[in-house]
Amino acid sequence: MTALTSATAAPEVLGRCRTLVRPALREAVGRMHPWVGEMAAYSFGWCEVGGGPTLAPGGKGLRQALAVLGAEAAGAPGPAGVPAAVAVELVHTFSLLHDDIMDGDAARRRRPTVWKAYGTGPAVLAGDALFALAVETLAATPTGPGALRLLSVALGDLVRGQADDLLFATRPWTGPRRVRPGEYRTMAEHKTGALLGCAAALGALLGGAPPAVVSAFDRAGRHLGIAFQVVDDVLGIWGDPAVTGKPVHGDLREGKKTFPVLAALDSTGPVAGRLAAVLEGAGEPEEAAALIDETGGRAAALAETRRHVAAVESAIADVPIVAGAADDLRSLLDFLVRRDL
Amino acid sequence: MTALTSATAAPEVLGRCRTLVRPALREAVGRMHPWVGEMAAYSFGWCEVGGGPTLAPGGKGLRQALAVLGAEAAGAPGPAGVPAAVAVELVHTFSLLHDDIMDGDAARRRRPTVWKAYGTGPAVLAGDALFALAVETLAATPTGPGALRLLSVALGDLVRGQADDLLFATRPWTGPRRVRPGEYRTMAEHKTGALLGCAAALGALLGGAPPAVVSAFDRAGRHLGIAFQVVDDVLGIWGDPAVTGKPVHGDLREGKKTFPVLAALDSTGPVAGRLAAVLEGAGEPEEAAALIDETGGRAAALAETRRHVAAVESAIADVPIVAGAADDLRSLLDFLVRRDL
Repeated sequence: MTALTSATAAPEVLGRCRTLVRPALREAVGRMHPWVGEMAAYSFGWCEVGGGPTLAPGGKGLRQALAVLGAEAAGAPGPAGVPAAVAVELVHTFSLLHDDIMDGDAARRRRPTVWKAYGTGPAVLAGDALFALAVETLAATPTGPGALRLLSVALGDLVRGQADDLLFATRPWTGPRRVRPGEYRTMAEHKTGALLGCAAALGALLGGAPPAVVSAFDRAGRHLGIAFQVVDDVLGIWGDPAVTGKPVHGDLREGKKTFPVLAALDSTGPVAGRLAAVLEGAGEPEEAAALIDETGGRAAALAETRRHVAAVESAIADVPIVAGAADDLRSLLDFLVRRDL
Repeated sequence: MTALTSATAAPEVLGRCRTLVRPALREAVGRMHPWVGEMAAYSFGWCEVGGGPTLAPGGKGLRQALAVLGAEAAGAPGPAGVPAAVAVELVHTFSLLHDDIMDGDAARRRRPTVWKAYGTGPAVLAGDALFALAVETLAATPTGPGALRLLSVALGDLVRGQADDLLFATRPWTGPRRVRPGEYRTMAEHKTGALLGCAAALGALLGGAPPAVVSAFDRAGRHLGIAFQVVDDVLGIWGDPAVTGKPVHGDLREGKKTFPVLAALDSTGPVAGRLAAVLEGAGEPEEAAALIDETGGRAAALAETRRHVAAVESAIADVPIVAGAADDLRSLLDFLVRRDL
C-alpha cells in the first residue's frame, strides 16, 4: 500500500522499546496497593490470578514504543521518553479494563478479562488506580505543565470516543439518525488516535523537541489511530481468522458499526437498502460482506486508510527529526497499517 | 467537644463557597460529552434522568469550600481557589460514582445512584470522564507542577483507601487477621482525609501560600477526614435516625467494620468475645451496640475524634493565615465533627 522501506523490522523495534520501559513500568506497578497491583500485573500479562507465573503474552507495547521513539526523534536518548512511555501504557491498560466492563467483553488476549477474573467492582478500582498512577508518574517528572496538559487532553478524548462508540450501538442502520462515516472518523480519532498521538508527542516533549515537532507527532498519532481502526475493521470482515485471531465475520454478527459498513450504507441505491435489511436480520453475514464489497464499502475503507497513512507521513516529513528514529517510526507504521490487507 | 466559637455559621460559609464555585463547575461539566455530562449533572443534583429539572439536593460542597477558604487563608481572594475547588469536586463525584458501583449501593441522597439510573457501564464511563476533567482543569491552570502533584497523591491515596475498605469486608472479626484500629485510621485518612487535605492545600497553593502552609493544610485535612469518619461511625450506631437519615444500627446490621466496633474487639476479655459472637450472628444489633459501649468502643471513638480535631487545630494554629478565613475554617470543623454527638 505504501512505498516504505524498513531499516529495522517492527517487532524488533517494539521489543527494544519494551525492554527499555519494562523496569520503570514494573517499578510503578510495584508501588500500587498489592491487591490492585495484582490485577494490573494480570492485565499486563505478568501473572495469573493469585499472582502465580504465567506464559500469557502481553500487548504489543505500541504506545510505549511511540513514546521512546518520540524522544529519540528529538535527538534525546530513549530513556528520556520512559516516563511518557510508562504513563501512556498505564492509561491504555486503564482504558482496556474499563472498556471491557462497558462492552461486556469476557476475554482479551485469550484470557478472561479483569472483571471476569476478579469481579466488576475490583476491575473498576484497578482501572482507577492505573489512571491515578499515570497522572502521578507524569506529575513527578520535572517537565513543566505541558506534559500533563497533553495527557489530560488525550484522557478527555479517550472518554469522549468511548462514549460515542457506546452510543453508536444504540443508533439505527438507516435514516437520519444513522451513524455517518465522518462521525466514525471522529470517534476513532478520540478513542484510538488521541493516546497514540499523546504517546509520540509526550516522548518528543520529554526529549526536548520544539513545539512544532510535539504537535506534528500528536497529529500523526491521531491519523495513525484512524488508519489502524479502519484496517482493523477491514480485517474483521475479510481477514483470515487464523491470522487475526478473530472469528469470521464476528463484527458483522455482533452488529458493530464499522467503517466499511457505514461507508456502504452511506451510498444510495437498492444494494445499500438490501444491505440494511440483511444487517437488521434478514440474511447471513456472508451476504452482508458481499454487499458491503459491492457498494464500495471495502474500497472506501482502503482509500480512507491510505489518506490517513499519507497524513501521518506528511506530518512526520514536515518537521526535523533524527533519521534513525524516523526509520523506526516508519517501520511501525508499515507494520500496523499494512498487515494482511 | 471543642471550645470553638463560630464567627459565621457553617451553612452560610458552605453556601457562599458553593455560589462562588458554581459557574466554573457548570462550565467545566458543560464541556463534557453531552450524554456523560448529563450523568455528571444528575449526580451533582442539577437534573433528573433525561436532563429535566429537579428539586434534588446537592452535596454539602465541603471540598469546594475548603479549596476557597484555603486560598483566602493565604490572603488571596476566594476566586483564586476556584480551579482547585472545581477539580476536587469533580474528583469527589468521580469517587462517589465508582464507589457506589463497587459497594453495590442503590441510593444516594434519597435518589437512585448513577449506576442504578443509567447502568453500570455508563456510570464507569461518567466517573472516568469526571476524573479526566479534574486533571484537565488543573493542567489548564498556570500554577506549575505542584498542583498536579498534590492532586495525584490524593488520587492515589483515594484508590488505596477504597481498596483497603473493600478488603476489610472480607476479613474476620477476631483472630490475627482481624482489622486493627490503626489500619482503620490509615484507611480513613486515605479514603476521606486525602481529598479534604488536597482541597485545602490546593486552594492555599493557588492562593500563593508558602509550602509550610500548603503542607499544614494537607495534614489538617487528613486529620479532619479521620475525625469525620469516626464521628460518622458513632452516629451510625447511636445517632438519631431522624437526624442522620440512616436506619438505626444500619452499620451493625450490614456488618461494617467501623471504628467503635474495631476498638471494642481490640480490647480483651469475655465481653469482647460475646460481642464477636453477636456480630457473627448470635444476637441482635441492639445487644452489639450495648456491648460496644460496655467494652469502651464508644469512648475510644470519641477520644480518637478529639485527638484528630486537636491535630487539625494545631496544624492550622502553627502557620500564619488570614483571620477571617481561619474563623470560617474553624466554623466548618465545628459543624463537621460536633454534629449531634
